[in-house]
Amino acid sequence: MGKEKIKNILFTVAYNGANYSGWQRQGNSVGVQEIIEDAIFNAIGQKVEIFGSGRTDAGVHAVGQTFNTLLFFEKVNKLPLAINCYLPNDIRIMSAKTVPNDFHARYSAHSKTYIYNLCISQIESPFDYQTCEYIKYDLDIKAMQKGASFLVGKHNFKAFCSANTTVTDFEREIYSFSVIKIGGKIKFEVCGSGFLYNMVRIMVGTLVDVGRGKIRAEEILDIIKSQNRQNAGKTMPARGLCLKCVKY
Amino acid sequence: MGKEKIKNILFTVAYNGANYSGWQRQGNSVGVQEIIEDAIFNAIGQKVEIFGSGRTDAGVHAVGQTFNTLLFFEKVNKLPLAINCYLPNDIRIMSAKTVPNDFHARYSAHSKTYIYNLCISQIESPFDYQTCEYIKYDLDIKAMQKGASFLVGKHNFKAFCSANTTVTDFEREIYSFSVIKIGGKIKFEVCGSGFLYNMVRIMVGTLVDVGRGKIRAEEILDIIKSQNRQNAGKTMPARGLCLKCVKY
Repeated sequence: MGKEKIKNILFTVAYNGANYSGWQRQGNSVGVQEIIEDAIFNAIGQKVEIFGSGRTDAGVHAVGQTFNTLLFFEKVNKLPLAINCYLPNDIRIMSAKTVPNDFHARYSAHSKTYIYNLCISQIESPFDYQTCEYIKYDLDIKAMQKGASFLVGKHNFKAFCSANTTVTDFEREIYSFSVIKIGGKIKFEVCGSGFLYNMVRIMVGTLVDVGRGKIRAEEILDIIKSQNRQNAGKTMPARGLCLKCVKY
Repeated sequence: MGKEKIKNILFTVAYNGANYSGWQRQGNSVGVQEIIEDAIFNAIGQKVEIFGSGRTDAGVHAVGQTFNTLLFFEKVNKLPLAINCYLPNDIRIMSAKTVPNDFHARYSAHSKTYIYNLCISQIESPFDYQTCEYIKYDLDIKAMQKGASFLVGKHNFKAFCSANTTVTDFEREIYSFSVIKIGGKIKFEVCGSGFLYNMVRIMVGTLVDVGRGKIRAEEILDIIKSQNRQNAGKTMPARGLCLKCVKY
């Protein structure tokens, strides 16, 4: 190990969050971060802290979560297979690459993209009930697409942030927000500079209210202006949410 | 209950077989059949035996397994939701309808269709590792399609039957056998009059040998003729197999 230089390594990781407390440990329930740190130790004998692009909540999934950490390791491209040997089936390292020393998975991020999966059906499928939220009534897609367009841009998103937060700056920028229907499934895909606590789940809950006709698409603007969480829709369940990618 | 007539009811059921011993109980591991019988009892208070279209093995899935049973129940279309309340998330009754008294889910079946899902990747996805078999090397799709065409028709399939069987008539008819590739996934879909024990998994294992170039597509004919299990490919793992539908 003496002649190897320490490297800052950026990893991408996919996980089914159904069985975890989220990225971080919560009380007695284990977090994805801790499991990965243990797997790195078991694979290459180095005890490290890993730095995620952000936390995901209990039950939330990822196909492209990122984290960085400092390691002594020559063949970086061998790391995913080596670490995966010590991970449970529902967490997989997908890639690893060396990045500059000042790179940080959270602070260097330019944008994040989340998907929310919704299925319109009376009966939940035994194959996707962990990764899809179910709704029994049909939704007006055009109205939701219009509603989503009002969320795009730089706004104060305090109305779309869980009251349970310590953040004081509520300004974020949404770069794009698409709503598409394929068969009985509706996929929300939102890309932004960053997101407040529960922001994606509250935005989708508000769009579902638009889709049901409880509020008009234009009212989204009033909700943004109000900066009042009470005016937005409910926080959608965790299982439908998935962190798609983090761009640098 | 006195004035209600007993009805023969045909159900379709979907299940993720990962956590079960298969359709039937095996030793200490619980079977899907038993769980459904318990749920029917809990939902409507009638203790019944259900008759499946056939058994599925431990770890094998179904989107359209069928079973029939005799019940006193007026509103048959209400049965799926009533029974689903007492089923775990990975088993769902999808439909129920009244059928003639002499109908039997197994003996009345005209054909069954199975899917085998194979994914070509170095890294298994945390989202489908229960429902997809993984393979690390690429396969020649055209050769496998040609190989599959030799399996279509009426043949003695003894070479494609697990030695562990009590069956004495090995003749079955395959109506169609398609092999398609979508992205990194290969889907085998086979429809036939019926299947011997492990027959689909052994046929797919033999086609994988064709796809790897270990045997030529034409050799499938020699394997059929040999009626010798040793000449066919390996039995593919259960997780990739799914009973798609049973036709009557």
